[in-house]
Amino acid sequence: MKEKVLMEDIVNLCKQYGFVYQGSEIYGGFANTWDFGPLGVELINNVKHAWWKRFVNEDFRTYGVDAGILMNPRVWEASGHVESFGDPKMDCKKCKQRFRADNLIEEYSNGEVAAEAMSNEELEKYIDDNHITCPNCGGFDWTKIRKFNPMFKTSRGTLENDADTVYLRPETCQGEYVNFLNVQRTSRAKIPFAIAQIGKSFRNEITPGNFLFRTIEFEQMELQKFCHDKDSMEFYEDYKKRAMDFILDLGLDKEKLRYHDHDKLAHYAKAACDIQYKFPIGWEELNGIHHRGTWDLSRHSEFSGKKMEYQDPETNEKYIPTVIEYSIGVGRLTLALLCEAYDEEKLENDTRIVMRFNPVIAPYKVAVLPLVKKYHKDKAEEVFKILSKEFTCTYDDTGSIGKRYRRQDVIGTPWCITIDDNTINDNTVTIRDRDSMQQITLPIDEVAKYISDKIKF
Amino acid sequence: MKEKVLMEDIVNLCKQYGFVYQGSEIYGGFANTWDFGPLGVELINNVKHAWWKRFVNEDFRTYGVDAGILMNPRVWEASGHVESFGDPKMDCKKCKQRFRADNLIEEYSNGEVAAEAMSNEELEKYIDDNHITCPNCGGFDWTKIRKFNPMFKTSRGTLENDADTVYLRPETCQGEYVNFLNVQRTSRAKIPFAIAQIGKSFRNEITPGNFLFRTIEFEQMELQKFCHDKDSMEFYEDYKKRAMDFILDLGLDKEKLRYHDHDKLAHYAKAACDIQYKFPIGWEELNGIHHRGTWDLSRHSEFSGKKMEYQDPETNEKYIPTVIEYSIGVGRLTLALLCEAYDEEKLENDTRIVMRFNPVIAPYKVAVLPLVKKYHKDKAEEVFKILSKEFTCTYDDTGSIGKRYRRQDVIGTPWCITIDDNTINDNTVTIRDRDSMQQITLPIDEVAKYISDKIKF
Repeated sequence: MKEKVLMEDIVNLCKQYGFVYQGSEIYGGFANTWDFGPLGVELINNVKHAWWKRFVNEDFRTYGVDAGILMNPRVWEASGHVESFGDPKMDCKKCKQRFRADNLIEEYSNGEVAAEAMSNEELEKYIDDNHITCPNCGGFDWTKIRKFNPMFKTSRGTLENDADTVYLRPETCQGEYVNFLNVQRTSRAKIPFAIAQIGKSFRNEITPGNFLFRTIEFEQMELQKFCHDKDSMEFYEDYKKRAMDFILDLGLDKEKLRYHDHDKLAHYAKAACDIQYKFPIGWEELNGIHHRGTWDLSRHSEFSGKKMEYQDPETNEKYIPTVIEYSIGVGRLTLALLCEAYDEEKLENDTRIVMRFNPVIAPYKVAVLPLVKKYHKDKAEEVFKILSKEFTCTYDDTGSIGKRYRRQDVIGTPWCITIDDNTINDNTVTIRDRDSMQQITLPIDEVAKYISDKIKF
Repeated sequence: MKEKVLMEDIVNLCKQYGFVYQGSEIYGGFANTWDFGPLGVELINNVKHAWWKRFVNEDFRTYGVDAGILMNPRVWEASGHVESFGDPKMDCKKCKQRFRADNLIEEYSNGEVAAEAMSNEELEKYIDDNHITCPNCGGFDWTKIRKFNPMFKTSRGTLENDADTVYLRPETCQGEYVNFLNVQRTSRAKIPFAIAQIGKSFRNEITPGNFLFRTIEFEQMELQKFCHDKDSMEFYEDYKKRAMDFILDLGLDKEKLRYHDHDKLAHYAKAACDIQYKFPIGWEELNGIHHRGTWDLSRHSEFSGKKMEYQDPETNEKYIPTVIEYSIGVGRLTLALLCEAYDEEKLENDTRIVMRFNPVIAPYKVAVLPLVKKYHKDKAEEVFKILSKEFTCTYDDTGSIGKRYRRQDVIGTPWCITIDDNTINDNTVTIRDRDSMQQITLPIDEVAKYISDKIKF
């Protein structure tokens, strides 16, 4: 097993094999955007599907929604984003580059200092006290901190003069809050229940450029549990556990995961924590579980004039529900899964790179390989046709079988199925396992079940 | 069967049961945006999953991508969108309202005139000749046609002075074109092959407000087939057929579908057609199949300086591939499926509303119903837990069984499973079919297979 995985190993592999490309690459790219290639899109689809199945479909007290990226701008007034959303930025007076003050401190302290929770004054003082210099020019001549709102603005309306400013949503959860009453009514949902969503958000921010870790366009998987305040800490603990179970089940290493409780809490919150993962860049937030009190629904009640309340059908008590939020980024989780899967294995005369994905999320479950294209192509296409009805498959008919195995190892395909004369004569195939490299022989009509049983989640 | 389905039947049902809500409804909405509720999100997920499976996963010559909504702005110069994308708009000088000239004509002619293909001069002449009046005030005093670019603009960058104008993509296909070389290289793809994508696009347009038919934010499912020009018409015909097969297989009525060949073609195209569906608002475009020649890759070669060519490994011929595009909107297809499924059935003493979805796309496959909550709840939850591992299920324990059946009919759940004393005593359940209303009895451990066999796609 490889001791230390470097971010550049991952970036290079992703680019070389079609997991992730630089966004708009032929135009020199577009800063902090990434396009998922053929393997990447299957990988993230599997991750999203596993999350949705686990947290929505297998829990009849959770309801999904898919709300707009463009919402009525009043939503962002109610949420507080128009007024006070933003990163603390400083300019180096010498080289004119701009940085996030909290990032400077986190990099300086190797993530030991939780700079995100510090006030502007505390940030400035820390940078001063520790003489943190400009990463670009080495100078030490900073402006004061200023905040820039990272919401992307655009205009709705086609009349030039009455165009309204609207925003690309910087978070998805407002889609659940504004639909709380609708979902409760139409689903006849009883508290406690949750509303979940997977969707894209956008933040116009200076990012440290750590590949998929932080991007201007990113996809969130999150849910908001609506409950009575007296039960809220129970659900908070429940989602802490379920969030951890989920990423362990997907294959992240227990040793590289830890809870990180927040020291400083928003005034309305009883608790907040992240789960951190040990990325090649250090321990960083992978997902968050936040107690949000009644803040969100209260604000929307105030700004919309609609009472965001729930009446308990048994006690008749009327109240604004407390919210527990659980949120995880698709890109960030995918990056963790890529780092976790990466392995360079020394063999007798060779080293192979293997992406040891949990088969559940592997882009392709099976590679169908005709031993000799000329003789076994038709049979192989027949087998592909059968198996691709059940799960994702790929097909490769070029090069030696050994080379083709290596190509599947490096993209993480758990099983290779070789089609040879035996397949034509007695309908059996050879199945080779990615991790053990062992081979077994099976009748074709048993293959689908053999694989399906191993990719249950 | 109901003779004529009205759009308002669909809109009301969607709102009442949680398929689709008005976007940002508590703030008075946000024009031409819609949020998918708990049933809607399962429905569109099923539609997207079926499309991706059919066109990407079951075809090893098709590769998926998931490109950014925000791309380098040069992409939209190359595509021609910055220069010449736009709708022909006219103002009523009397009431100051603005309209799309082509929409005025299409509404006036009940869709008989293909106004989209008309030039500005032709549009103005038709409106003049037919004395088409303002739908708002009845006046007949129009300005000349002007074009407004419907791309949403925003700014990237946090320095106020160097912020670049960027666009929300108005179509997804550029994500395939700019990644053509990357996908070909990393997948070692041989022409003919296709690149596919599902994703959101945005257009800031005046829409006729027909529910999901045209929205400012919409999701596309589309693929671009790259081929040698000599084979291009063969693939064009192939996708015409495959596009039709797909929507027939999902359950659209053959009698409500027709091909509509375009009379006017772009200068680079050899052919173009839509498949139209008979919506409650009339025959309208459901999806398109377009021959795009070498236009897109040539333009990107020109603007990026990268040669968007393919070299045939056998003949060594180097050429810019010809593109066949097949594209269908998630919202529009979902609207067609909702309209198709809607039925009011007269029973002996009753009328029931049934959404007769193909079970493959039904939001929930199964409803688990404990006969008496007090006695059968635990067993029902146990059954829910088993079945929800396999497919989407819902759970309902309130009201009489008859009422619960009706509630499942109206949201299109194909099977209701009742848990009663027999379930506890001998592990059997009653399965009731949505369409025939017939019931059968099955052992619990045969249910998953019974249902799974019926939802293969």
